[in-house]
Amino acid sequence: MSSKKSEIIKILKDSDGKTVSGEELGNLVGISRTMVWKYIRSLVDEGYEIASSTKRGYVLKSVPDLLYPDEIRMGLRSGLIGQQIHYFDELISTNTTAKELANSADEGTIVVAEVQKEGRGRLGREWISPRGGIWMSVILKPTISLVHASRLTLVAGVAITKAMRKLGVDACIKWPNDILIGGKKVCGILTEVNAEIERVNYIVVGIGINANVNMNDFTGNVKNIATTLWSEIGKPIDRVSFIQDMLFEIEQEYIKFRTQPFTGILDEWISLSDTIGHQVTITTPHKIFEGKAVGITGDGALVVEDPGGRRENVMAGLCIYV
Amino acid sequence: MSSKKSEIIKILKDSDGKTVSGEELGNLVGISRTMVWKYIRSLVDEGYEIASSTKRGYVLKSVPDLLYPDEIRMGLRSGLIGQQIHYFDELISTNTTAKELANSADEGTIVVAEVQKEGRGRLGREWISPRGGIWMSVILKPTISLVHASRLTLVAGVAITKAMRKLGVDACIKWPNDILIGGKKVCGILTEVNAEIERVNYIVVGIGINANVNMNDFTGNVKNIATTLWSEIGKPIDRVSFIQDMLFEIEQEYIKFRTQPFTGILDEWISLSDTIGHQVTITTPHKIFEGKAVGITGDGALVVEDPGGRRENVMAGLCIYV
Repeated sequence: MSSKKSEIIKILKDSDGKTVSGEELGNLVGISRTMVWKYIRSLVDEGYEIASSTKRGYVLKSVPDLLYPDEIRMGLRSGLIGQQIHYFDELISTNTTAKELANSADEGTIVVAEVQKEGRGRLGREWISPRGGIWMSVILKPTISLVHASRLTLVAGVAITKAMRKLGVDACIKWPNDILIGGKKVCGILTEVNAEIERVNYIVVGIGINANVNMNDFTGNVKNIATTLWSEIGKPIDRVSFIQDMLFEIEQEYIKFRTQPFTGILDEWISLSDTIGHQVTITTPHKIFEGKAVGITGDGALVVEDPGGRRENVMAGLCIYV
Repeated sequence: MSSKKSEIIKILKDSDGKTVSGEELGNLVGISRTMVWKYIRSLVDEGYEIASSTKRGYVLKSVPDLLYPDEIRMGLRSGLIGQQIHYFDELISTNTTAKELANSADEGTIVVAEVQKEGRGRLGREWISPRGGIWMSVILKPTISLVHASRLTLVAGVAITKAMRKLGVDACIKWPNDILIGGKKVCGILTEVNAEIERVNYIVVGIGINANVNMNDFTGNVKNIATTLWSEIGKPIDRVSFIQDMLFEIEQEYIKFRTQPFTGILDEWISLSDTIGHQVTITTPHKIFEGKAVGITGDGALVVEDPGGRRENVMAGLCIYV
């Protein structure tokens, strides 16, 4: 969006439902009344509802429920995460695009789409990504070695769960990286890494949130295991405002990750997760682990204690609560 | 190379310096004498020295000192590594091309070039890659989690060192992943990873060996810190034969990696390395470690003990023997 257009939107928003004349708008932005009218037309095309009268001027009635970069930027409290925003109506997946952009992108750049045509969850599983959701990837470039890359999933899980709890829902992290409400999945995180052994080139944290997704868009078994913020709260959320909060939380946790011992984030993760203490069955390609989840390691491995008291660290797998 | 052409080369090689008539070659390969003549012409263009007389036929005098896939394949003892070979005279770097091919390539595919125009070492450092060297990348797709990816550097280091020792040189691994002879670098390994946290998509192991590089091709300080197999042995090595041995060793170690506890490879690494026991200074972006190298962890971190007896695991850095 051009900066003039974004200035016009900001003035109309700040005027709080009062009419602003074309002349005043033009003076404030430094353009002619004709140009003001052209920008207003373009905003209306983008979904902004703007009432206009030739005599009195313009008044903003509603903003579209879309994740326009300018909307996200207005009111953004983070200084690194989300400074650069690549917005698309439809993408194959935001992670795919983020990986294409990553080498030349600044750290903190995000990719957002209204719809993912081939959204994916962990291990290549399909992730239904219709309109109303939040499909986003964050590009990070921490100077860490490869063995610590898995920690970014925990960082993101903690941040997103905190942002969700501020909406008043009882979100919990289920190991390794799903966020559930009432036992149903509301968010998945797909972290991808490009690295040398000794240094990470970039990490793409893919975030899929069933925000204002219509439950009817879920088919088959997904209906039974997924939920949406809309259905949990009882009304659609303000996606832009939630994204702003979430990016702020991600930045806060990321700063902790970069500057403080990782035990702090691990403690937060444990307090936000309902996995520790549960009897679990974890299926991996090599083995099925059964026992009680008793802890998490610095790498994000779940510590599972079998009935005989033997403990094993499980790096990854499909976790079911027994 | 077309399979007919490769059959002709094999027959000429197997005939051990004896002349083979065009008619016989044509019969064995199933083509006309005219086609035989065309293939011979093309082989001569590729650098094969073939003496021919219209009456008696063809005799192979020498094969070019080039890493043609057919040459590598003839006599290859590995069953997975090197089955697919992408050969180039010049590349930016074999790792760059391998990463482009990796998603659609079979595991074990290798990329080989006679010259790298922008070869790189660890952490983006320049790696001089003139003719005569072995510049190769191996694409691996182990079903392992990201935290274990760093192990592949140790796997490759062990395998290459073993292959070199069979040439009669006293090659040693210097942590983290250089191979030295008499304290001078003869080989570097640059491992790159593309992964989700829970599964590796692919690993590219880049191998740069100063095989028959002319020492005069090294400039500046590289002259003092690098060596070549040629200068250590006193004559050029048979690069094709060495690559065959090396790919076999890589495959053997890779099979161990996939099927046996990693401690076996760690023990081999320790026995082939001269780092353990040395006083070292290791420079990392965050800290300088000084002390005695006393061990290596399962992740490939060097265990350094300071004069006070405190031990620290160092994941990566520039290691200097004191």
